Amino acid sequence: MLSFKKPDVDQFFKTFNIHDFAVSHDESQLILSTNLSGKYNLWAMDLPNIFPYPLTFNDQISYGIEFDKQGRFVIAGFDKDGDENAQLYAFPPKGGELKPIRLAEGHRHTYPFLSEDGKRLYYTSTKDDSTFLKGYCYNLETEEEAVVIHGDDAATYLLTASPEEKSYLYLKHFANTNTLAYVKTINEEILLTPKTDEQHTVSAADFVSEEELFLITNYSEDLSYLAKFNLTTKKFTKVLQLEGEDLNELKIDRERNILYFVSSKGVSDKLYSYDFTHQTLTELETPASIVEKLHISKEGNLYLLTRSATRPANIFKKSHSQSEWTALTNYGVPGVPEEELVEPEILTYPSFDGLEIEALLFKAKEDTTNGHVILWPHGGPQAAERKEFRSLFQFLVNRGYSIFAPNFRGSSGYGLKFMKMVEGDWGHGPRLDNIEGLEFLIKNGYADREKILLMGGSYGGYMALLLHGRHADYFKAVVDIFGPSDLFSFINSVPEHWKPVMNQWVGDPVKDREKLIEYSPITYLENMVKPMLVIQGAMDPRVIKAESDQIVDALQKNGVNVKYMVFEDEGHGFTKKENEIKVYRAVLDFFNQYI
Amino acid sequence: MLSFKKPDVDQFFKTFNIHDFAVSHDESQLILSTNLSGKYNLWAMDLPNIFPYPLTFNDQISYGIEFDKQGRFVIAGFDKDGDENAQLYAFPPKGGELKPIRLAEGHRHTYPFLSEDGKRLYYTSTKDDSTFLKGYCYNLETEEEAVVIHGDDAATYLLTASPEEKSYLYLKHFANTNTLAYVKTINEEILLTPKTDEQHTVSAADFVSEEELFLITNYSEDLSYLAKFNLTTKKFTKVLQLEGEDLNELKIDRERNILYFVSSKGVSDKLYSYDFTHQTLTELETPASIVEKLHISKEGNLYLLTRSATRPANIFKKSHSQSEWTALTNYGVPGVPEEELVEPEILTYPSFDGLEIEALLFKAKEDTTNGHVILWPHGGPQAAERKEFRSLFQFLVNRGYSIFAPNFRGSSGYGLKFMKMVEGDWGHGPRLDNIEGLEFLIKNGYADREKILLMGGSYGGYMALLLHGRHADYFKAVVDIFGPSDLFSFINSVPEHWKPVMNQWVGDPVKDREKLIEYSPITYLENMVKPMLVIQGAMDPRVIKAESDQIVDALQKNGVNVKYMVFEDEGHGFTKKENEIKVYRAVLDFFNQYI
Repeated sequence: MLSFKKPDVDQFFKTFNIHDFAVSHDESQLILSTNLSGKYNLWAMDLPNIFPYPLTFNDQISYGIEFDKQGRFVIAGFDKDGDENAQLYAFPPKGGELKPIRLAEGHRHTYPFLSEDGKRLYYTSTKDDSTFLKGYCYNLETEEEAVVIHGDDAATYLLTASPEEKSYLYLKHFANTNTLAYVKTINEEILLTPKTDEQHTVSAADFVSEEELFLITNYSEDLSYLAKFNLTTKKFTKVLQLEGEDLNELKIDRERNILYFVSSKGVSDKLYSYDFTHQTLTELETPASIVEKLHISKEGNLYLLTRSATRPANIFKKSHSQSEWTALTNYGVPGVPEEELVEPEILTYPSFDGLEIEALLFKAKEDTTNGHVILWPHGGPQAAERKEFRSLFQFLVNRGYSIFAPNFRGSSGYGLKFMKMVEGDWGHGPRLDNIEGLEFLIKNGYADREKILLMGGSYGGYMALLLHGRHADYFKAVVDIFGPSDLFSFINSVPEHWKPVMNQWVGDPVKDREKLIEYSPITYLENMVKPMLVIQGAMDPRVIKAESDQIVDALQKNGVNVKYMVFEDEGHGFTKKENEIKVYRAVLDFFNQYI
Repeated sequence: MLSFKKPDVDQFFKTFNIHDFAVSHDESQLILSTNLSGKYNLWAMDLPNIFPYPLTFNDQISYGIEFDKQGRFVIAGFDKDGDENAQLYAFPPKGGELKPIRLAEGHRHTYPFLSEDGKRLYYTSTKDDSTFLKGYCYNLETEEEAVVIHGDDAATYLLTASPEEKSYLYLKHFANTNTLAYVKTINEEILLTPKTDEQHTVSAADFVSEEELFLITNYSEDLSYLAKFNLTTKKFTKVLQLEGEDLNELKIDRERNILYFVSSKGVSDKLYSYDFTHQTLTELETPASIVEKLHISKEGNLYLLTRSATRPANIFKKSHSQSEWTALTNYGVPGVPEEELVEPEILTYPSFDGLEIEALLFKAKEDTTNGHVILWPHGGPQAAERKEFRSLFQFLVNRGYSIFAPNFRGSSGYGLKFMKMVEGDWGHGPRLDNIEGLEFLIKNGYADREKILLMGGSYGGYMALLLHGRHADYFKAVVDIFGPSDLFSFINSVPEHWKPVMNQWVGDPVKDREKLIEYSPITYLENMVKPMLVIQGAMDPRVIKAESDQIVDALQKNGVNVKYMVFEDEGHGFTKKENEIKVYRAVLDFFNQYI
């Protein structure tokens, strides 16, 4: 009878995202930052009714959503079109005036949290120290503000206060692989991991009482584990380690003495509950492969923001007493059943030096494949490509392209040592891991040497430029999405509070001069001869527009076929659906032209 | 502590509407036509999950949504930017290709319904007879089409088929107060109400079996009641009449022998169930004052589309076996609690000839009132102003204006005789009912003679023009929203299938020439001296743009202060949120200028 055409490419553009969420103390309301109407706004649902209604209309993504526990107001941060300079506002929980609370133009305000009585607003800001930052306590009644913490050797973030607000937990970010947690009590500042010269990270921590904290750290280990720290005895104790799993989230249900954490196993997550009175560990089934955010209510109910390779962001709830998850949202690809989307294969291969690399391969289906593989070096670089929905991937796969995304050395989720491998080595090991991945694909029949394309964003854009400059023969065409082209100018132009980490992370412009020249894509301009598409957000504070301008200018002078798209109202990512659609269409049209 | 400003006028613009809905046969999916993203599209929910996801992206309002009972596809009608020329499309229930099924440019397709097996699509169209219309049966398998009914003396609408598809029910629309229902069997065409010269209406009807139909009619009565008709015996039987209530909707649960109907009591509705085996009548509590649409599922569950004065359109569900309604949507005015919106007072007053007129008065609150009352003659005119949410009203009331909306003679819901009073008398009785209403307000302290404004749309726009032309002294300023200015040109320019009713409804341009001149606003151009705002949709097929053009031109020549706003992508109403906002803002700014 009636038959319908296969999913149109448009449909993949129509997926929505959830950037963040928060639940009111009494669980009567859930607020989410989502682009349901095309642009990001805050929407709410009056639980158990999950039909959403709009709270804000400023068309901005939200950084931090914090409910007053008495339900009188909500605090949220909003930046301007992706500039990441979030300012803090308050509004009535059911919507209304967006009242500015802490504004400092050109500066960012992060991690807002409220005291139990809702009178004091804590947050971290760059406004008085753009390099090391300060943590503030703003009294909403008296409108007085005090500095609670002030870093002097690293970007310092105020994370939370103890239950009675007597102590403060903060984090010093020396590098992505070197973050230390401290508690500031009335008398002292206490480091939560034993003193050592070995770099390590604390990725999560929270008070279980005035005395004791739990933390997730990889101190003296390669993979992160659960530990606790007693503020009186100053004793650090390893509590729980899971073989081959890297722990990374932590929420404590103080009423029931249960602790929840997430563990990353390469490309997917697991969720555990740990009864710390009885020391029993339980793995909880999750409704998706990736847990983005975890919230535990006063009643012990769990709320998860999740993603899977074939399902975009969705929020689920599980009552404390039940094992089933209930979907509170219902995002998918309109008109494309989940079964028609592609679940990636997990490949592992040895790199040039024998290091094992894990990779995702999204294979185009037999009936639609055009035989081409797109190499996608992920961003970060201390991040990973995981089993997470990307409409860009699914729509390219649907149009016949396969996508290969290796978690090259430096990626997160494979231990501290692996992650450190990209530090000071942006352009060598990771680059060859990508190339070895291609050779592995070719050798094993996954790819044809003559049918390879290249695309990446952020660090992945940098890698796309570098691979183009040093291995142009592999690729028929290249897409660079806000990738740094010159590491010297990149180091100079990042936000101030990034600068302390740049020496370890990328390199010292003086001491590592030779290496930075070697690793800068712009060094290999002459070799970049393949057609290119360069995409940049004008508001990007991380990789500024000049990074793309300079490479585009130079290539155009060399007569290279390069198309340049600049989005005036976007930063390091695309927050406006119409811009996202333009980018995706352009990428598809570009690749289609050269295959 | 934190205090927030009173609701901003913007918030009233942010209300969404539901234009229509449909439920799949197995109740696993509900589709609604709503402007959740600013423009109308179809959205769906996978019941019991009520988080909506988008099905269409054409930004068009939907006319008719019909599920294939086996869940293979959905049929829906879409026009173009309000031109009302709906074309029929099919799409997969979870979204995808919008496949054209019946297209005829410049023509409208209405009342689509499918056979039980989903193979035959029935509908009514103007495509072959733009005056009297035809009812078609289109075979989706063979793509063959047959004419099922063809009117020869009135616009004729195919409503439904009998359970075994042996007979067809259709309606002839001679006038709003003269509509006859017929059944076409294999052999004959049977009128469902006894033959009479007395005009009456059949407002709803459906088969309960191949033999018998229930219908709502006011045959030989002033108010509509429930009746049944037997096709074999040809017997018409009055079944149930409710004192002072005008019945108007009808849905039959054939499995359980229960019939549901809605009754209008002036400005609000009641819902009843009637067990026609046991002849027991039950009034059902409803969650709102107005029932817009009623759907009964195979399992006997009820779905209602409702509105109240203080709550916009929402859909509710009630299980057959339970008495509570569950809200499936959650639309309100963002940030404005329902308690802060104004519930209208119901006033009644005697008109110039003693006729009792009911009216709604939305009174601005004590602390915000500016003392001004806006007279709002409703559209139709054979319609009524009821306890239904209008953001235009609530936002003007919030800004200090009171609104007076009389159900002048000719309004619906007050019986056949009352409704007929506007026919051939557009400009006399109804006009004086409005004026008497103002005098009543002034006499009783509800309004100040020096502080009256005037606004209306469609027939209400016509009335605003006419009142301006004949009673300008009452009004400080006037807003006309797509109102006919000249009844001669109006009669000539309405859609073809309206034309047969124009003689009775408005008047005969030849026989009633003098009266039509007297009733045409344009006759009183010289007296229109107050500031005016005229608003028109360029696509309007009912009151064409020329109606507004001519009055604006003439007034501007006379030096009257007149502002003219034309919306290129709107018809007889506003379907785009951004246009609606522009209109509302303009109305407020306009009135604020002259109070």
